Amino acid sequence: MWRYRKLLPVPDGPVRYPLPIGGTPLLPVPALRRTLGTPHLWIKDETRNPTASNKDRATALVIEDGLRRGMDTITTASTGNAAVATAFGAAGAGMRAVIFVSTGCRPDKLALMTQAGAHVFRVPAGYAAAVDLSRAAARSFGWLDRNTGANPYTIEAKKTVAFEVWEQLGRRLPDVMIVPVGDGPTLVALDKGFAELVSCGHAGRQPRLIGVQAESCQPLVRAWFGAPAGPAELDPTATVADGIAVVRPAIGDAVLDAVRRGGGAMVAVTDNALLSAVTTLAARAGVGAEPAGAAALAGLARAVECGLVDRSETTVLLVTGREVKAGGGPAGPGRVAVVEGLDEVERALAGAC
Amino acid sequence: MWRYRKLLPVPDGPVRYPLPIGGTPLLPVPALRRTLGTPHLWIKDETRNPTASNKDRATALVIEDGLRRGMDTITTASTGNAAVATAFGAAGAGMRAVIFVSTGCRPDKLALMTQAGAHVFRVPAGYAAAVDLSRAAARSFGWLDRNTGANPYTIEAKKTVAFEVWEQLGRRLPDVMIVPVGDGPTLVALDKGFAELVSCGHAGRQPRLIGVQAESCQPLVRAWFGAPAGPAELDPTATVADGIAVVRPAIGDAVLDAVRRGGGAMVAVTDNALLSAVTTLAARAGVGAEPAGAAALAGLARAVECGLVDRSETTVLLVTGREVKAGGGPAGPGRVAVVEGLDEVERALAGAC
Repeated sequence: MWRYRKLLPVPDGPVRYPLPIGGTPLLPVPALRRTLGTPHLWIKDETRNPTASNKDRATALVIEDGLRRGMDTITTASTGNAAVATAFGAAGAGMRAVIFVSTGCRPDKLALMTQAGAHVFRVPAGYAAAVDLSRAAARSFGWLDRNTGANPYTIEAKKTVAFEVWEQLGRRLPDVMIVPVGDGPTLVALDKGFAELVSCGHAGRQPRLIGVQAESCQPLVRAWFGAPAGPAELDPTATVADGIAVVRPAIGDAVLDAVRRGGGAMVAVTDNALLSAVTTLAARAGVGAEPAGAAALAGLARAVECGLVDRSETTVLLVTGREVKAGGGPAGPGRVAVVEGLDEVERALAGAC
Repeated sequence: MWRYRKLLPVPDGPVRYPLPIGGTPLLPVPALRRTLGTPHLWIKDETRNPTASNKDRATALVIEDGLRRGMDTITTASTGNAAVATAFGAAGAGMRAVIFVSTGCRPDKLALMTQAGAHVFRVPAGYAAAVDLSRAAARSFGWLDRNTGANPYTIEAKKTVAFEVWEQLGRRLPDVMIVPVGDGPTLVALDKGFAELVSCGHAGRQPRLIGVQAESCQPLVRAWFGAPAGPAELDPTATVADGIAVVRPAIGDAVLDAVRRGGGAMVAVTDNALLSAVTTLAARAGVGAEPAGAAALAGLARAVECGLVDRSETTVLLVTGREVKAGGGPAGPGRVAVVEGLDEVERALAGAC
């Protein structure tokens, strides 16, 4: 990722973050192309990052910035993958990670975070409250704030995916790129990266961006159609795609702007389509993904059905992540506690240190 | 990996295998170095391969060879990771995979194989019988045989790790490399790669190789000390390190020769040490590993205790793999069946096609 540092907010001097990030493959997927009849289909495989998701890019740039400013603690709230990326990235960099999750966060994801030594606070009032608490803690205690939508470096980091796709396609852009959408920074960052390539004169026009959400949690698809979302369309617990199940996306308006600007669209897909996409990616491309990570493939089928994408177009699917396992090791020096306010956070950390 | 193709049995012409393999990072691990007092410690992180283990290298070279010879089916027996690598690699290349496992193979590993569309045969008589059946099927049906110890291309592929370490250290070799040992090809391949660097005049002498096994399944450690192994030292079900729990290693003699040649050693480690190594890798290096994959770190502690390694030496730990999840998707077009003989295999495949 540091290959593009002149276009990133990273001053001169050696990069201190120790884990290699980005430079993930753009796969030609011959067997999948034959199966789908899409001769110019590509997969940008972000599962090849250190914790197997694109969250590693944002984590790396935020921590690099923190290391240069002498900061010793990073915090974020997360539905899962961003927290795992933060815990492992902080561990590699010798920084403390303090993670806030909803009490609904899955035990296997918690195990990964604590194995990497993170302090994990579970917040009964849910994900939005966890975000508020993480941000308040960052302000009060002077911690590095990695929260999506709060730290613009997350978008700066993720825009490097656009640069890589352009280089890997032989310095040209695809017609369409299809992307899972939760809080929104992945799609917004692609738009920014492609826009910078156009402004630098490296490309004539941006690709269309198609954002994909799960049917049972599709606030931005509803907003795209200007239709109100019913309760069955805003239930983050009702989909297998937990990584993109966000009721109030942090930068939803920016997502809709980016999609509109490039002439793209938003589509919703069923859980059956998501699960089937996981299997098709494995069996026809040899790529492992979690359901949210495979959403772009489900979205492609939907987009073709709706006439939004032609099978002959150069189309890139962003596969954002796969699940890894905690591997059986016990929890690291971190701690897990349930908290409702900042004072409890402070007491728990004082006790742990 | 194909960067070294002049030293591999790959004729001219474009590489057909579609998944990028190898080129995994050699990590400087600053926080882990401080914790252990080992200023020149490195981790060669093989979890960055497509299915998160070093088995992907062997799979890629065997399939590349098969594609060039027009073969449409690959078979292997495996305790887990080699089977997963074969299933995904074959899927990516559009080839059929037929996998033989013992009936003790873990359900989550089976799910990964079937998700990738492999045909999986469970063999009640155990791993050794599964190997025999897979090899017999390869001979009878003209399939590509990827079995460890049967196909020399597995060692040719894995020797590229030695070339990468040499290049990544600035064209010099480490003093010591520590490696998990199950059937043996990973260690034997490193020895071959380092020996080729020495014969080409790129290095003066090979690094010492230290092989690591789990205490409860340590046939080669016992053989190294010339001592008979008791039943408690040959129980593959008694360790968390299932990936290296092999009672009769396929190329055990070659392992002992390679270790002896470089002035290395064999060490055994407890399950507690393996689990603790998993946590330390996560919390101090930001690297996820399964217990067998983390064995080199547990082996380092043991080797330092025994005076086999000095903390000031340039030491590379090979982290061989981490566990990934099937991600919730249903089984692919593959099938699972229990079989005891070749005729059942033939009938099951005829029914499935």
